[in-house]
Amino acid sequence: MWAAGARQPRRAGLALAAAAAAAALALALAAWRRRRRPPVREVLFFPSRPSCTEALLGEAAGLGTTARPCPCPLPRVDSSLSRLLRHLLSARRSLEICLFAFSSPQLGRAVQLLHRRGVRVRVVTDAQYMGLPGSQIGLLRHAGIQVRHDQENGYMHHKFAVVDRRMLITGSLNWTTQAIQNNRENVLVVEDAEYVKPFLDEFERIWEEYNPINYRFFSKDDK
Amino acid sequence: MWAAGARQPRRAGLALAAAAAAAALALALAAWRRRRRPPVREVLFFPSRPSCTEALLGEAAGLGTTARPCPCPLPRVDSSLSRLLRHLLSARRSLEICLFAFSSPQLGRAVQLLHRRGVRVRVVTDAQYMGLPGSQIGLLRHAGIQVRHDQENGYMHHKFAVVDRRMLITGSLNWTTQAIQNNRENVLVVEDAEYVKPFLDEFERIWEEYNPINYRFFSKDDK
Repeated sequence: MWAAGARQPRRAGLALAAAAAAAALALALAAWRRRRRPPVREVLFFPSRPSCTEALLGEAAGLGTTARPCPCPLPRVDSSLSRLLRHLLSARRSLEICLFAFSSPQLGRAVQLLHRRGVRVRVVTDAQYMGLPGSQIGLLRHAGIQVRHDQENGYMHHKFAVVDRRMLITGSLNWTTQAIQNNRENVLVVEDAEYVKPFLDEFERIWEEYNPINYRFFSKDDK
Repeated sequence: MWAAGARQPRRAGLALAAAAAAAALALALAAWRRRRRPPVREVLFFPSRPSCTEALLGEAAGLGTTARPCPCPLPRVDSSLSRLLRHLLSARRSLEICLFAFSSPQLGRAVQLLHRRGVRVRVVTDAQYMGLPGSQIGLLRHAGIQVRHDQENGYMHHKFAVVDRRMLITGSLNWTTQAIQNNRENVLVVEDAEYVKPFLDEFERIWEEYNPINYRFFSKDDK
């Protein structure tokens, strides 16, 4: 009995080690593949060509081909929005988002999906815009995603994200349906470390500055 | 008399040819120097450290050391604004500007200065913001700079400039005093052709689309 009892935890330990080794191998393989291909250097312009992104989001959610095809009349074509979504959904470990305004339902779903997939998502946003109707910020917080905001007079006007500490997504585009569908906007997607690192450092600076322990709460009695 | 009269235009012609050769040599030397140095790859963050930019603008205007020192109490230090101004003032031939909002007096002065220096300046902006109090657009037009604007429902929300068709200045920053002094903003300054070319193409597309021959003018009688 004692010998049999000891074998079971040992087997479980071996299975755990094998799973960890397989995960490490998959990560190393992905990193090797990334090193083999040239760094991403892409410029996206908006307004985005109208396109249905349901298949893309369904696939990323693991629904694959079992999902019912979307009944909407939009064409299933490549567009600036679908390319932006694809880059975002390539996240495996971490996603830092620093956005003035965030109300796009598609981009909101993508971020929630990454959070559920175990990606460490952190969001910084502007206090004056996060509570507006249609904002995704409340939904992200409700889903358990960490969000921090400013308490300043100026705007937190950045519009950037960093995927897996290697890919910078930045430009003039706020992640809103108005901007995606109607505005003239640009987004740069770059993997050059010379551009990624300063933005990561800026994110960490702001993240610490906007730590809730520094928030000031005023009561009505305060002058 | 005839021989002496012919010599004078010949001398003038020689002087003109020498001046043209000297100008061509200076341009070639500048291009050679640019090729020798690595491409600019800089990230600027805002709000900018307060700094006096009078000396920088005075120098660019050719006043040199003869200008009276500025009596303002701001330190004469390197800042994000001074670096942005320096990159802008490096223009020798052309400057394309595509800006949602433009009200910074310092950046306005720099653009006017380049125009006076013979740089071909073209500006694209948003119709709804160009007439707001403090906008530089009226002043630029008054100075003879070509400006075109949208007539769309969406915003012309870009915030980029291209210097001498080689340097891209782009980011979240509108060229306003509020944004420079109070907001969290970013500006990328890059000389990689992979990023510069798509932005130049986008500028030319918008420039043609916003050609005044396409403007629609409504009278009060129109329904």
